[in-house]
Amino acid sequence: MKKHCLESGFTIGFLGAGQLARMSALQAFRFGMQVAIFSDRPETEPAEFLTPASFNGSFDDLESMIEFANACDVITLENEFIDSGILKELRDRTGTPIYPAPETFEKIENKEIEKLTFRDAGIPVTPSRLVGSPSDIENFAQEFGWPVMLKSSKGGYDGYGNRTVNHAGAAATAFDELGGNQEQEILAESFVDFTHELAVQVARNGSETVIYPCVETVQEDHICVAVKAPAHIDPLLAEEAQRLAKAAAEAIDGRGIFAFEFFLTSDGQILLNETAPRPHNSGHYTIEGCISSQFENHVRAVAGLPLGSSGMVQEAAVMINLLGSHHRTARIDFADEAMKTPNGHLHCYGKTDSKSGRKMAHYTLLGKDPGTIYNRAVELTMNIKI
Amino acid sequence: MKKHCLESGFTIGFLGAGQLARMSALQAFRFGMQVAIFSDRPETEPAEFLTPASFNGSFDDLESMIEFANACDVITLENEFIDSGILKELRDRTGTPIYPAPETFEKIENKEIEKLTFRDAGIPVTPSRLVGSPSDIENFAQEFGWPVMLKSSKGGYDGYGNRTVNHAGAAATAFDELGGNQEQEILAESFVDFTHELAVQVARNGSETVIYPCVETVQEDHICVAVKAPAHIDPLLAEEAQRLAKAAAEAIDGRGIFAFEFFLTSDGQILLNETAPRPHNSGHYTIEGCISSQFENHVRAVAGLPLGSSGMVQEAAVMINLLGSHHRTARIDFADEAMKTPNGHLHCYGKTDSKSGRKMAHYTLLGKDPGTIYNRAVELTMNIKI
Repeated sequence: MKKHCLESGFTIGFLGAGQLARMSALQAFRFGMQVAIFSDRPETEPAEFLTPASFNGSFDDLESMIEFANACDVITLENEFIDSGILKELRDRTGTPIYPAPETFEKIENKEIEKLTFRDAGIPVTPSRLVGSPSDIENFAQEFGWPVMLKSSKGGYDGYGNRTVNHAGAAATAFDELGGNQEQEILAESFVDFTHELAVQVARNGSETVIYPCVETVQEDHICVAVKAPAHIDPLLAEEAQRLAKAAAEAIDGRGIFAFEFFLTSDGQILLNETAPRPHNSGHYTIEGCISSQFENHVRAVAGLPLGSSGMVQEAAVMINLLGSHHRTARIDFADEAMKTPNGHLHCYGKTDSKSGRKMAHYTLLGKDPGTIYNRAVELTMNIKI
Repeated sequence: MKKHCLESGFTIGFLGAGQLARMSALQAFRFGMQVAIFSDRPETEPAEFLTPASFNGSFDDLESMIEFANACDVITLENEFIDSGILKELRDRTGTPIYPAPETFEKIENKEIEKLTFRDAGIPVTPSRLVGSPSDIENFAQEFGWPVMLKSSKGGYDGYGNRTVNHAGAAATAFDELGGNQEQEILAESFVDFTHELAVQVARNGSETVIYPCVETVQEDHICVAVKAPAHIDPLLAEEAQRLAKAAAEAIDGRGIFAFEFFLTSDGQILLNETAPRPHNSGHYTIEGCISSQFENHVRAVAGLPLGSSGMVQEAAVMINLLGSHHRTARIDFADEAMKTPNGHLHCYGKTDSKSGRKMAHYTLLGKDPGTIYNRAVELTMNIKI
């Protein structure tokens, strides 16, 4: 790095300006750092309200990122959609290190490469194959059965870019909808019969590794609506998920914070499903739930500071996502009870506009008994309107 | 307020741009708010790195604050040195509410008025009197004994503006040094023989009051070097300090966060010593030590949100101030052990320059046994150099 990360003026740059950059930036400030933001959106994004140093351009346009990179001592990313070749060139031209490194992104550049990387490292993943036509999908289904999950190989999140195909007759439409006929690479994945969806955060700073608890994510329509920490499963299975998460972070030589999402299958297997080389919704509970949050350890890891503890502060934590109701100026109503409740913590992302289903805020409740706090958190947030 | 505080674009303004505004701003962001800063310093101050909306001018110059006030939905203050008449006019001209209100500041406008306000409310305070000459000091000493504490009636902090006068021969020099011959009002205070210095935070939002634990402050040369939470004193005395703090906050009709510092005298009395109508160094431990920190409840109170719990997260917390070593570019060295320690939390204020004795950062350690964590925190921070 150009200067010591605890020296006055040290600047951490974020490519991306959403709530993940925003919550990370708050932790950077806490260590006395300065923050620079690069956004590719025309509207003012959540993290841009937090700094005088905002830059605008396109993630596809190297030139537009140069000035930003020169203003930073280290750069990190809020999403995994930037081409690793562009990141390498940005680093080489400006001398500003980027973590996770472009070489890490290369290993998970798209879903096909990602699967190969982890399969090679001995990590169990869902059976999958690139498909170039509807008939490839049928062949895949003959081997692994219906339904088949179709995924855009690059760029999908929160269910965008996913389709479930239940029978041969639906293959052509889904393939076309995902852009299969417009050169979009499509991955077919066998449908996994699972009992739980799990997630584990891993922080690595180049010399140390810190592993967070194994949590359960509750999904509706492919969107995470809640997280229960720790996951209420056999402790040996939780440990296995943590072991696999650590191995996966090592397999991509990751530096920063990483989230690994797993299926716990009906027959007791743990399969790696998705990877996020960044802070992740499944780790928001760590802000109050753990001694050092995913955002704090992300900043520490990227800046090269020693890592903090991932130990939980209380026995259990629950995080509920608060989604937008409809298109309107963002405004949180009916949150008083939630805000008054001891050990209940509201976080709002400062987005200008609310939209149906948009992640606008979240609420974390800590306590002793997982079931009790889950029910209570659901109750406290069900009337909140954004 | 001009708009609902949880609506997009709601802006909280801080008069003052130091670490107290910075740590408060971080909590405002967490609720999705925007932040505007007004600084009277030429150099970039800690809180100015956190927002695109920085304003510059003088606290004595109403006109220079108008544009800032118009950009805010509510304004709060980082210090108590601004004339309450100017604050009233600023509020009246712009329609932007200010909390704590100018009427609250009026009641503690200088140390003489402050003492009268609290004496009238039945709160025990140290005996004191305005002195207009060295012979007034001698008369005061004849009544209350030597030594006599001399304090500038307005503007003192961290021991600046204080002198201890041990005998009649030293009165004239101290009186002159504090500006007594240049129309500076000087208050003589009887020296209090105390066993502990205590502090209590109180948050009030207009309808609710939240009282923090009674803590012990450790002072060296009139500067707070450490805080032990809770104070290791008779629980009945701690409750009495909390009761007096609540009464004091009510006596000034305070809205926001307030710190009240007390002496626990050798004969077991609790005397109110100093008042801070803002977040205070003695409450920094609350960031990790309490469910909702003084900064969070300050923002909640000022914005009109329900208050959060002041309950402690663990049995005990210790906060150590990290002071500058000498004049140099700010940089924190030898903090690795402190940062690695679970339950140890480093906060750096982002000041550009370090100076001998300047408050640059702090370190909080949580644990079960107060004595153990105090010794450990001292050990972990003694080699940190800034």
